[in-house]
Amino acid sequence: MDITSDTHSQHISRQFNQELEELKTHLMAMGGLVEKQVQDAVFALLEGDSHLAEKVRDNDRQVNDLQLQIDDECTRVLARRQPAASDLRLVLAVIRATSDLERIGDEASKIARNAMLLSESNGNVRGLIEVRHISEHVRKMLRDALTAFARFDTELAMQVVREDELVDDEYGSAMRSLMTFMMEDSRSISSVLSIMWVLRALERVGDHADNLAEYVVYLVKGLDIRHSDPDTIDPQVLKKS
Amino acid sequence: MDITSDTHSQHISRQFNQELEELKTHLMAMGGLVEKQVQDAVFALLEGDSHLAEKVRDNDRQVNDLQLQIDDECTRVLARRQPAASDLRLVLAVIRATSDLERIGDEASKIARNAMLLSESNGNVRGLIEVRHISEHVRKMLRDALTAFARFDTELAMQVVREDELVDDEYGSAMRSLMTFMMEDSRSISSVLSIMWVLRALERVGDHADNLAEYVVYLVKGLDIRHSDPDTIDPQVLKKS
Repeated sequence: MDITSDTHSQHISRQFNQELEELKTHLMAMGGLVEKQVQDAVFALLEGDSHLAEKVRDNDRQVNDLQLQIDDECTRVLARRQPAASDLRLVLAVIRATSDLERIGDEASKIARNAMLLSESNGNVRGLIEVRHISEHVRKMLRDALTAFARFDTELAMQVVREDELVDDEYGSAMRSLMTFMMEDSRSISSVLSIMWVLRALERVGDHADNLAEYVVYLVKGLDIRHSDPDTIDPQVLKKS
Repeated sequence: MDITSDTHSQHISRQFNQELEELKTHLMAMGGLVEKQVQDAVFALLEGDSHLAEKVRDNDRQVNDLQLQIDDECTRVLARRQPAASDLRLVLAVIRATSDLERIGDEASKIARNAMLLSESNGNVRGLIEVRHISEHVRKMLRDALTAFARFDTELAMQVVREDELVDDEYGSAMRSLMTFMMEDSRSISSVLSIMWVLRALERVGDHADNLAEYVVYLVKGLDIRHSDPDTIDPQVLKKS
């Protein structure tokens, strides 16, 4: 069923529609902030900009506040409007999404903390190429997942889900070459470890983007594809209606 | 109100209460399974039991299935019963809790994967004492968080929240000594890295137990203490009623 026509036919209350729209708008604002946090954290690391890294760490509070605020709005919508069907799924998807966005914010903070550590170390830092490459990949996933949410676009959402497997492969191979660096030069251990934590954080950002994409499928199609192999999902079911 | 409809509404509310009780029971069953997964994963690592580690990895599917099943029950309760106040908070707390329990299950799988890797390496593995120590601590936190949920016990929940800070300290100090091992003996790098991933996984289990404890305060008191400093929360507010 098309979520838009469903919404239109079932709601007499224009105010209720407006509340649901606001939930979505606020979630997108939180998504935008979190995207910026990841971008700034990676930039701070690559450019050795410890001032920007500190800003990222400080801004995490804003991300947390937005989560509390949006979750509170969701609870009030559930209590007052008692939504059903696709409206209920939207509210539940927003609640789940704020939790993933908040955790992406935490990962950005971790990257920023490692950027501060690395900016103090002198000498060549290994693994920055891998960081740049994987960060571009997961930032695209995050952007696409948020766009898919905003547009109720299940096909774009499924692309994000499939991308996550590629990121996992890239991550595995980057970790293996970093381990080789470490073994070759024990003086690099501390800085390579920092880069490993950063890569792990980026890989987690990819996982959370993957979760966001799964919620889009849930809210539009009523289909819970968490823990499913993306190749086993019937593409017909996911077609735009 | 006439007698028939009164009986009818009592019947409905009895059934509703039963559904809420079942949600809690199923969450506790999921919690029990996840506790066992963490316990087995750590045992497999400490004893070099790769057979048990494989079992943990395979059982993760059961954890995932339980999450989907309980979340589905929650959605149906929301749609059919349109709960308000503390009933609504219970359902929302259960939805959040399944997500954390599922992630603890993922961390147990990661520990099991590292247990398999380490069982293949010969030679002394450093850091097992730290693993044993931190695992006992976070397992106690998880057990207490689940007990607090079952009993709606906010005081026990706040103990868990405070414990999490201690675990974070222990984790930081263990990571520093492991880095020293690595620098002293580059042949140990690969196995020490595995132990580092295990410690990180255990630290995450502690974080998720902390989240579970925060949901208990939310569901009992209607107070969202996520992102709050535990020392700034008025103890009077958390007193058992």
